[in-house]
Amino acid sequence: MSRDLTIAEVRLTPILVADPPLLNTQGVHQPYTPRLIIEVVTAGGVSGFGETYGDAKYLELAEPFAERLAGRQVNDLNGLFTVADAVAVDAARVENAVDVGGLRGVQTADKLRLSVVSGFEVACLDALGKALELPVHTLLGGKVRDAVEYSAYLFYKYAAHPAGVPSEPEDWGEAVDPAGIVAQARKFTERHGFTSFKLKGGVFPPDEEIAAIRALAEAFPGHPLRLDPNGAWSVPTSLKVAEEVGGILEYLEDPTLGTPGMAEVAGATGVPLATNMCVTTFAEIKEAFTRDAVQVVLSDHHYWGGLRNTQQLAAICRTFGVGVSMHSNTHLGISLAAMTHVAATVPNLHHACDSHYPWQSEDVLTERITFDGGKVTVTDTPGLGIEVDRDRLALLHRRWRDDDGTMRDRDDAAAMRVTQPGWTSPAMPRW
Amino acid sequence: MSRDLTIAEVRLTPILVADPPLLNTQGVHQPYTPRLIIEVVTAGGVSGFGETYGDAKYLELAEPFAERLAGRQVNDLNGLFTVADAVAVDAARVENAVDVGGLRGVQTADKLRLSVVSGFEVACLDALGKALELPVHTLLGGKVRDAVEYSAYLFYKYAAHPAGVPSEPEDWGEAVDPAGIVAQARKFTERHGFTSFKLKGGVFPPDEEIAAIRALAEAFPGHPLRLDPNGAWSVPTSLKVAEEVGGILEYLEDPTLGTPGMAEVAGATGVPLATNMCVTTFAEIKEAFTRDAVQVVLSDHHYWGGLRNTQQLAAICRTFGVGVSMHSNTHLGISLAAMTHVAATVPNLHHACDSHYPWQSEDVLTERITFDGGKVTVTDTPGLGIEVDRDRLALLHRRWRDDDGTMRDRDDAAAMRVTQPGWTSPAMPRW
Repeated sequence: MSRDLTIAEVRLTPILVADPPLLNTQGVHQPYTPRLIIEVVTAGGVSGFGETYGDAKYLELAEPFAERLAGRQVNDLNGLFTVADAVAVDAARVENAVDVGGLRGVQTADKLRLSVVSGFEVACLDALGKALELPVHTLLGGKVRDAVEYSAYLFYKYAAHPAGVPSEPEDWGEAVDPAGIVAQARKFTERHGFTSFKLKGGVFPPDEEIAAIRALAEAFPGHPLRLDPNGAWSVPTSLKVAEEVGGILEYLEDPTLGTPGMAEVAGATGVPLATNMCVTTFAEIKEAFTRDAVQVVLSDHHYWGGLRNTQQLAAICRTFGVGVSMHSNTHLGISLAAMTHVAATVPNLHHACDSHYPWQSEDVLTERITFDGGKVTVTDTPGLGIEVDRDRLALLHRRWRDDDGTMRDRDDAAAMRVTQPGWTSPAMPRW
Repeated sequence: MSRDLTIAEVRLTPILVADPPLLNTQGVHQPYTPRLIIEVVTAGGVSGFGETYGDAKYLELAEPFAERLAGRQVNDLNGLFTVADAVAVDAARVENAVDVGGLRGVQTADKLRLSVVSGFEVACLDALGKALELPVHTLLGGKVRDAVEYSAYLFYKYAAHPAGVPSEPEDWGEAVDPAGIVAQARKFTERHGFTSFKLKGGVFPPDEEIAAIRALAEAFPGHPLRLDPNGAWSVPTSLKVAEEVGGILEYLEDPTLGTPGMAEVAGATGVPLATNMCVTTFAEIKEAFTRDAVQVVLSDHHYWGGLRNTQQLAAICRTFGVGVSMHSNTHLGISLAAMTHVAATVPNLHHACDSHYPWQSEDVLTERITFDGGKVTVTDTPGLGIEVDRDRLALLHRRWRDDDGTMRDRDDAAAMRVTQPGWTSPAMPRW
């Protein structure tokens, strides 16, 4: 294996991965979710892999971006942002695009660029690590912990996708009430050893979700609990929920939309507020932090622009006395490995990270990453420490290629209309 | 050269370097200034060098720190902070120590720790870069520019140190009035090609320094000019100076002490305020940034905790719309190389950096670093791209060893008393 670190080739592989019928305030996960797998190959023959969102608007940007990478050095990570700046983005197209009903926060051209950069950055770090025989966490300054803790990500869900829509079998069953959520939580603890729990809320009226949190607190006394309605509540509703269950919550996540509303809720309750919607870009930090609108930022390395930007975000949070942890959307093992490497290097990571990974029955790795006691061990294997199964990747790509277009953009409201004709994304605040 | 990155040995070499009689508001530079040269040697036989402050309190902390490094990996940069946290610091000793009369800002145990960490971090980066055959800027994510611009650092100064105090000959001559400052500036442009100028003020009453700035503006029309009285002025005096020369200044640096005063000045004038005194630690950022007290932070990698912390500081500044550039105290080529590598990686570096380097007639390098058109070329040579002259290092160490103790702590007020008996650090604000 040669040390030539020049990027010789970049391969983009859009895929569709099976996703269970998980509910959120906008609708339900589609049977398949698009992801983009990025492979960077050096002139020295080393391959590195990254993963990011795979909706059409990301693919459209990734292609010209990839074309500009050939001939650059795989270690020129700062240069990725220069490349991104040079790729034209149709801002109007971005701002009006369906984006899971805004579950990922503000939509801007810059954020789209960063979401694409992140996939390439992780691929470059993986390749660089392999070429230098160093793990990615070492390229990020070194791990400060040997394992990274994740939380059980509980969802209200249907038992299965509507008949006729092909998907993978899964055995999680239905969860539409407190008993269903507690049963799901038990499965999570049995299978993965998680000790903290996050409930995706905003699906049912607040009283039902309050009951679910109370049921969890009773079933798992003393364990950290979180509730995330994705901004579905008004300020008064948020305050009511905070009053009812604030005492048993580790934090309340995005109870209401926007910095002013979050600041109002934060100012009136002692419950810490976390966010992956109010603060999802560097541009939103100043106002939110100066107004003390959020107490924990849930970083998503995909849209913050990669692992090094995530470290910068963590440094900003530390400087302003704001906590930091990690957000997750549907993702595969490449991103779980990336999250684990960067999380291992962040000293001020004081909350278990979120991950959808246990919900993904499919992966592109030869060997799935496992949770032991709710934790992922930080590997010292060079690069991300993973191996991609090219047959599996090709299979998931064929599914994307053969799709008639209905699954290539994740649209939870459209998926909901399959069983609930006439469903539209609810106006916010919903309650 | 083996790839074993284990730290096998750490060598600490305190030295005294010749320093001209440069004036500031606290007094005058001593004939010799203490610096600490840190060498980290890997089990693979690679040496890396770092440099930091060399006063006694830094040495006292560096010794137990060095003892804890053996056996660790040279690439475990995040771990350096863990090591630092474990070394006991006598907070009272730190807070009451003479520290150039507070020219370096607040004195805390944490800042002292970071000042020591930085020397080790640079040494580790140098060694790591050599072992991996990569320049330090690549270890920091890659350069975004090929040369780093520095400003001419103008000082009021005496012609020579008092008779009887040994020092190096130097030909800069006296500068105690506008004509002297302009002549000095001309020498700087002729010798190094600098195109921007910073005058260290706070030495003479404000009217005299205003006259010097006006003379510089006349001699170098359109060139960026800065004035730095090290907090010697009251808020009203600061506002008066801003009114008189604000229009021809790139920025005004630390006109007055403390965040409340700086915020008051910043709020009442359109002249950007820079600082290396009001904001010198991460702990001071929140208040200063939320109050818009400073518009440019002058990072000093020595006390911010190294090159990676400097990148974090730059990210914070970028996020809050605050400019960033670099501060300098008396330093040698190791630190100039380190500053240049990190500066090359900071996208939002929009002001020429400060450097005392042209004032240092001595260095520990085999070959001095040169300024071309006021810029230092960013090297792609592995590590810092410098070579240490061990004979020269030994010579400067012997000077430190043989010193009777009068020069081992930099004390500009004490140096001033040699010619002005009874001199004490002026109470602030001085004017």
